[in-house]
Amino acid sequence: MSDTILISEVGPRDGLQSIDRIMPTAHKCAWLDALHAAGVREVEVGSFVPARLLPQMADIEAVVAHALRLPDWTVMALVPNLRGAQAALAAGVHKITVPVSASRAHSLANVRRSPEEMVQQVREMVALRDASAPKALIEIGISTAFGCTLQGEVPEDDVIGLAAALADVGVDEIGLSDTTGMANPAQVRRLFRRLQAQVGARSGAAHLHNTRGLGLANCLAAYDVGVRTFDSSQGGLGGCPYAPGASGNVVTEDLVLMFETMGVATGVNWQALLQAREALKAGLPGEPIYGMSPEAGWPGIREDLKN
Amino acid sequence: MSDTILISEVGPRDGLQSIDRIMPTAHKCAWLDALHAAGVREVEVGSFVPARLLPQMADIEAVVAHALRLPDWTVMALVPNLRGAQAALAAGVHKITVPVSASRAHSLANVRRSPEEMVQQVREMVALRDASAPKALIEIGISTAFGCTLQGEVPEDDVIGLAAALADVGVDEIGLSDTTGMANPAQVRRLFRRLQAQVGARSGAAHLHNTRGLGLANCLAAYDVGVRTFDSSQGGLGGCPYAPGASGNVVTEDLVLMFETMGVATGVNWQALLQAREALKAGLPGEPIYGMSPEAGWPGIREDLKN
Repeated sequence: MSDTILISEVGPRDGLQSIDRIMPTAHKCAWLDALHAAGVREVEVGSFVPARLLPQMADIEAVVAHALRLPDWTVMALVPNLRGAQAALAAGVHKITVPVSASRAHSLANVRRSPEEMVQQVREMVALRDASAPKALIEIGISTAFGCTLQGEVPEDDVIGLAAALADVGVDEIGLSDTTGMANPAQVRRLFRRLQAQVGARSGAAHLHNTRGLGLANCLAAYDVGVRTFDSSQGGLGGCPYAPGASGNVVTEDLVLMFETMGVATGVNWQALLQAREALKAGLPGEPIYGMSPEAGWPGIREDLKN
Repeated sequence: MSDTILISEVGPRDGLQSIDRIMPTAHKCAWLDALHAAGVREVEVGSFVPARLLPQMADIEAVVAHALRLPDWTVMALVPNLRGAQAALAAGVHKITVPVSASRAHSLANVRRSPEEMVQQVREMVALRDASAPKALIEIGISTAFGCTLQGEVPEDDVIGLAAALADVGVDEIGLSDTTGMANPAQVRRLFRRLQAQVGARSGAAHLHNTRGLGLANCLAAYDVGVRTFDSSQGGLGGCPYAPGASGNVVTEDLVLMFETMGVATGVNWQALLQAREALKAGLPGEPIYGMSPEAGWPGIREDLKN
């Protein structure tokens, strides 16, 4: 194997947004510096949402400005609506990512809009981008693609139909998100294959959760069918606060270790990633973080444990 | 998919042997009852080793006798040497499992014998079985098959050469064990394919660890290349006390959930497995146990979390 994948680090957005405490701006910047130094080449730095709704993201403009000073990586922000997109593009992000839920129940609970209304919003975002920031990319993460705690099963045809509608309005990338941690490897393979057949090269990232311990197995399944961009969160921080019962993003440290030991290049230096983990810890002292590989270490001889 | 796999529950041996506390015999029997009621059809009930070395296994005769009273499952015991095999076969187990390490360093540290000397021991076990208990099966788990904390890399040729020698002396099944939690999915696929090519239908179980969070991904990888028997441990209890730094068997609860949600039949009822988990807890109050799915629940609508 001599393949390459892209790790899209979502911790600074998905992670920090899901906990009540607020990481100070200087610590966010230091964490981003450390992630960049570790070789991370795409990062979701935060959300453009009203500070009264998500005070954790009140400093998003400053964080974006800092991230944009670092070279050779893609700085991405989440936007839930047109107003957020305007602010994000004005701030100069390279890419906006828009969650659009395939579950009607989740979409209404999360953004008070149906999936069809969200497609219309995205159409307006594309027009805005074309007019004001033509180099910026628009990524969609189809949330609840593998099931929903509110609606239950989400028909695969709904997911693929939504992807087709989004491709028609001109977005650049469409990924699938296991917002509620309900995916299994067979489903991941089936749905990504259908997505690829439907939207071709616009088929995007796998955003998978570790809610039931299946996170890495689902990433492997996605890799097997050709997915090459993986969202993950340092320390496993995050989940979706609007999807009750969901928790646990895939842990970047464990994901990088899996792919690198398989011989798949991630571009990320695992030891340096542990330094970034320390920066995360320093910004949120005492906050529980996850991952098994940081504790176990890189596979190899354990000189410390020889008799 | 309409495939079937066999879950080989190793917790009563691998799990209980790895912790200092001793589960009372009555609790062991109640746990076995609950595992059997959940549909487990193969179980490693303990080890035939001197009680002064592993006092946790001092009641192995009573535990085997109890397990043999339950119908329609395979009662297996670990034996490290010929003396253990004699005792196990005399006790009437259906199958003995013998760990043989592919790492010379680990083999010497673990059983004070080289791999070649272990093959000779196994030859004597086969002769004993043929003479005294011809219906009993002999399974080998090749330990440190994917790497060793003492030796480092274990050449794949050493693993396959050892498997060939063991097939030659007449064992029934040969599996591969990631004793030290160093395996990755690419390696799992490669090595099981080579094993199958070498020993054909005698190719046996995948015994994989979750030391670095890759346990289920490695099980998926093994399944993909045709492995159909999976060792796992309820509550993730266990690891190898002789392989320093190793910990964390694959969690039976999470493994069953992964395969069942994929549409692969395990024969195990997941809800009943949670009852067995309670029996385990009752026998070791306060002992840390693992697994994410028991906390998250079966994927589906969460009525309790609707507004």
